[in-house]
Amino acid sequence: MYPNQLENLIFALQRLPGVGAKTAERYAFTILDWDAEKRKDLIASLNGIDQIQHCEICGNLSSGKICSICENHNRNQNIICVVSYPKDIVAIENMQSYEGVYHVLNGLINTSKGILPDMLNINALLKRINEETEEVILAVDPTIEGETTALYLEKLLQGHVKVSKLAHGIPVGGHLDYADARTLAKAFEGRSSNEK
Amino acid sequence: MYPNQLENLIFALQRLPGVGAKTAERYAFTILDWDAEKRKDLIASLNGIDQIQHCEICGNLSSGKICSICENHNRNQNIICVVSYPKDIVAIENMQSYEGVYHVLNGLINTSKGILPDMLNINALLKRINEETEEVILAVDPTIEGETTALYLEKLLQGHVKVSKLAHGIPVGGHLDYADARTLAKAFEGRSSNEK
Repeated sequence: MYPNQLENLIFALQRLPGVGAKTAERYAFTILDWDAEKRKDLIASLNGIDQIQHCEICGNLSSGKICSICENHNRNQNIICVVSYPKDIVAIENMQSYEGVYHVLNGLINTSKGILPDMLNINALLKRINEETEEVILAVDPTIEGETTALYLEKLLQGHVKVSKLAHGIPVGGHLDYADARTLAKAFEGRSSNEK
Repeated sequence: MYPNQLENLIFALQRLPGVGAKTAERYAFTILDWDAEKRKDLIASLNGIDQIQHCEICGNLSSGKICSICENHNRNQNIICVVSYPKDIVAIENMQSYEGVYHVLNGLINTSKGILPDMLNINALLKRINEETEEVILAVDPTIEGETTALYLEKLLQGHVKVSKLAHGIPVGGHLDYADARTLAKAFEGRSSNEK
């Protein structure tokens, strides 16, 4: 119905997550209305993606061989926070209080999908840990895959380094009655007391 | 936080309609995970957009100077359906029963936004209408802008050619109690009777 070129664009845009025919059409018409400058921007940024690589130390996304966090000597290189994906780093950095470095697994153990430990960025983690390493913080999602991965890493690192996990509980600003039973149980388990 | 190249892509994707920071990030990560082939497809289709032009006869989007509908001699070139945007043609073609041709205004009169009749593709419409033209069907949205445009065209074409408008009423498969008062009023106005 539409000119071939437009159909091609609509088809290519439908590969984005959650984008169906109608949304892709809407995006395509918007792009069609853009001036040449905006279109060039998008094309240039798509081409730029090719230059992104994984940091050789921590596995985070990086413009160069070493990412900006690993390169930053103001950060405590002896505290390593293990996350599953680069996105998680952004969430933790937004706290503006963590001063250690990261290690990105780029996945989680998922035996049903055939994702085994040796497919994750774990060997590089073992190589990084030395006598100076103070702590490894496991900051993986509290899902089945996340817990499996955390358990695996805990066993692997046991006796070599101090390993800690993030606290579970009720989100700040959340409501008790909206919390699911497991979250509530974790919140009770991890309760803190003002001992007399 | 992310490598520059990724930030640039997230920024460029946020220009799409209804796409905020989170969605753009999700799109960007998906694109990052794509193999080179898929990324090339998207870039090629974005480049292809430059070749799309407006049909010299009807104003529809077209790969060449004349669109595929105007070029099709099996269609009745003497019945012209006036629509506001190329998208509307797709909706009408999906009926698979209209055999005339189209004329795309590429907009609707909107005085508050400064869109005046001379900014629309109206002159080309007047040039197309000749003694052989049987009917001009105004198929514009039943919005204020649409009705204003329809009224303007009706007056302009009065005495030159037969002008008709689409019927208003309750959508097929719709429910009476969900119809708004104006639609219902139009449905009553346009009721058909089986005269005895």
